[in-house]
Amino acid sequence: MTSDYLYQQLENWLFEGIQAQRWRTGERLPSIRELCKQHGLSKATVQHALQRLEAQGLLEARPKAGYFVALRSPVAEPLSRSRIDPPRPATVSELLLDIMRRSAAFDLLPDLHGGELPASIVTLNRSVARALRRQRGEDYQYYDEPEGNLALRQQLALHVARRGWPVDTDQLCITSGCQHALFLALMASCQAGDVVAVESPGFYGALQLLEQLKLQVVEVPASITGGMDMDAFEEVLERWPVKACIVSPAFSTPTGSVMPEIARHRLLALAESYDLAIIEDDIYADTAFGMAPDPLKALDSQNRVILCSSFSKSLSRDLRLGWIAGARWHAQIIRLKLVTQLASSRYLQQGVAEFMADGSFTTHLRRQRQELREQRDQLIAQLQAWPGDIRVSLPQGGLAVWVELADHIDTLQRYPQALEQGVVITPGPLFSVSEQFNHCLRISFAHPWDERRRKALKQLGELLS
Amino acid sequence: MTSDYLYQQLENWLFEGIQAQRWRTGERLPSIRELCKQHGLSKATVQHALQRLEAQGLLEARPKAGYFVALRSPVAEPLSRSRIDPPRPATVSELLLDIMRRSAAFDLLPDLHGGELPASIVTLNRSVARALRRQRGEDYQYYDEPEGNLALRQQLALHVARRGWPVDTDQLCITSGCQHALFLALMASCQAGDVVAVESPGFYGALQLLEQLKLQVVEVPASITGGMDMDAFEEVLERWPVKACIVSPAFSTPTGSVMPEIARHRLLALAESYDLAIIEDDIYADTAFGMAPDPLKALDSQNRVILCSSFSKSLSRDLRLGWIAGARWHAQIIRLKLVTQLASSRYLQQGVAEFMADGSFTTHLRRQRQELREQRDQLIAQLQAWPGDIRVSLPQGGLAVWVELADHIDTLQRYPQALEQGVVITPGPLFSVSEQFNHCLRISFAHPWDERRRKALKQLGELLS
Repeated sequence: MTSDYLYQQLENWLFEGIQAQRWRTGERLPSIRELCKQHGLSKATVQHALQRLEAQGLLEARPKAGYFVALRSPVAEPLSRSRIDPPRPATVSELLLDIMRRSAAFDLLPDLHGGELPASIVTLNRSVARALRRQRGEDYQYYDEPEGNLALRQQLALHVARRGWPVDTDQLCITSGCQHALFLALMASCQAGDVVAVESPGFYGALQLLEQLKLQVVEVPASITGGMDMDAFEEVLERWPVKACIVSPAFSTPTGSVMPEIARHRLLALAESYDLAIIEDDIYADTAFGMAPDPLKALDSQNRVILCSSFSKSLSRDLRLGWIAGARWHAQIIRLKLVTQLASSRYLQQGVAEFMADGSFTTHLRRQRQELREQRDQLIAQLQAWPGDIRVSLPQGGLAVWVELADHIDTLQRYPQALEQGVVITPGPLFSVSEQFNHCLRISFAHPWDERRRKALKQLGELLS
Repeated sequence: MTSDYLYQQLENWLFEGIQAQRWRTGERLPSIRELCKQHGLSKATVQHALQRLEAQGLLEARPKAGYFVALRSPVAEPLSRSRIDPPRPATVSELLLDIMRRSAAFDLLPDLHGGELPASIVTLNRSVARALRRQRGEDYQYYDEPEGNLALRQQLALHVARRGWPVDTDQLCITSGCQHALFLALMASCQAGDVVAVESPGFYGALQLLEQLKLQVVEVPASITGGMDMDAFEEVLERWPVKACIVSPAFSTPTGSVMPEIARHRLLALAESYDLAIIEDDIYADTAFGMAPDPLKALDSQNRVILCSSFSKSLSRDLRLGWIAGARWHAQIIRLKLVTQLASSRYLQQGVAEFMADGSFTTHLRRQRQELREQRDQLIAQLQAWPGDIRVSLPQGGLAVWVELADHIDTLQRYPQALEQGVVITPGPLFSVSEQFNHCLRISFAHPWDERRRKALKQLGELLS
């Protein structure tokens, strides 16, 4: 396929070069000046391509030295290559549900809740309290519009426009979080019995939703760095009648992979050929350590990508506030929201809108990204001290790394032992219905590595050796 | 059927006497002392029975004068007796959806939002803001339990215990409002294609839900004073395979009827014989002008009544906070809530729990009931000045009266004309899928009758004559 933009042509050329090891890990790329000359491109175009590859975690910018091929994960790809099984009803065991509930906090020690409340959250809470104080007359007697508060949708439109996706406010609908958005997307685009493709390993919340909505699941192997494997996906589409596909192009769960531009175009072309709904889980985009990857939705000329996101990973899990851009299913999605819960709280949306409007959200994200990167590096450093042979993903965003242990270690079996020691782990089998990732686990870096969490991680290393 | 309690025996005897016109409208009942002597009962037992009939709107207590048979609605029963049609897919037209959205505000002039913010709502908002200020450490990084905040469930348990329903906190789950609770109840108890019985006329939100969940609806005639007709319901159950039944025993929508004790026992016996789920919409109970009627759930010895309610009608529509007691489906309901939206905001639940704990909710309800009763009386007085022959229900709680106009007046047809004059009406056809209530409409008394609303009501009287 050919790209419409010059920067994309260069981006693809560099991407293929890195994949083909024309430049090896740690090696410096040709300078911007050299690339300009070589390809007859402007400096801005070359920089744009390089920044996008940096956002995908393929390059690392070193001040005054240039762009280097990033230290990739200390894993050989494919890490755990999953097989392709035929579609089946998604069934999630009670044990896994219990683990999922505990794991949603992304914390080895979920009862800790330590530390200081960050200044930005204090500001956020003040904004919300102010919106409550400003309630007037009979405001409390009225439901908000089902599509949500216009001021908040305007702020969100401005926010995503920075990632190359110019969106109108009437393409957005406010939800009670990303899980709620995924639910609305599936309800609107599928019927009981339909087949839905997911990444494998992939987000367990999606598997639970498929189960409750009586949908069938087909798992498509996903790579640690590039996300869903498009060759495998095409094979799946040829063999079975897939109705929708859930993907996280920006920092997928659990591996943190970023889908490259080439794969994105191929995914959309396949969606068009096979008449699919693409449900894009974009919840981790705002955690990007570098430039946030564009949403897949930005390339959606066919109006068939439903983007789902929320503030739960980037700001606060207790807001219960997310959003959805429903593409051709948008009207039906608004109706479903109206019918299943009428509206969202207006005061809350107004408070968050003001928090965004005064620049506090951007400031918050800047600080948080730095913290997350440091916490990731500290985690990786500690994991290197674990006994035994382990392999770890090296995500450029998100909240967790994916760890592959020696084959004989069953993380699900070790779960109760860890729990006895007060440590909650997130075993690999949660991320699939096909029992393929028994020797894997997700470890989060969402929380600061204080003394107690460090100790818990060390204990865990011993337990899992 | 015989009742277990002495007060129930007296209540039934009095109820039947009123129905048989042994005492006529406005007539005084025997005194408490006479009833004690006559039936060999204690004063407390007799008072309990009388208060319960007062709660059902059948009696009126006049200080120092005794209990009188209440002025019943200026309607001859049956008002609009609906026919029984076979089950059919619930389909709601786009026009009706638009009307429903506007009507959810219960206001003839929904853009007015006038008046002062009541002191109790100021207190509520302060409680919520305080809970936000008290957020500590990493609280914002954690999801609440899917069943909801324990402090709030404790307050709710205390609150409903006053209505004769002792409930454990683990039988309750917090939701995003009553509509969300109804959605969870239907998802847990029914499958696509199942038949669900509803009151006719009945709540339009239930019809919309049935449509979205691909359920079939069978409408059971309901009377203006006593709610769903149990003879008709039994006939329906004999003829069709009904899976669940949605009822509002306390102030149903749109008529404001209260289901008498006898009908409640019969409903539960039928539910047992035919293995039904009973979904009790209890949202209006807290608006009762007198003592709130007991919930049907209090009689549920078979664990098959799912109670749904929220703060939207009694406190604030903008909280988006409700609750559900899921009976035998409770575990599945919690799972569905978890899977479709993870959790509710913890700070919000804590704020409302404190508002309840310090007695502010009770104070609020006391004030509000008085206001609602006054607003109802003002509405009825104005309706009596309307031209033409109209009949109006006289509810003892809820937020609206049901009005029957002359047969030839089509309220749906007059809807756009009213809208042109800036007045939003709630036409009868909204409350049924069988086009039976074309000459009816619901008129709300939820808002104060200020000059502009009075004028709108007068205009409406002319438009509908």
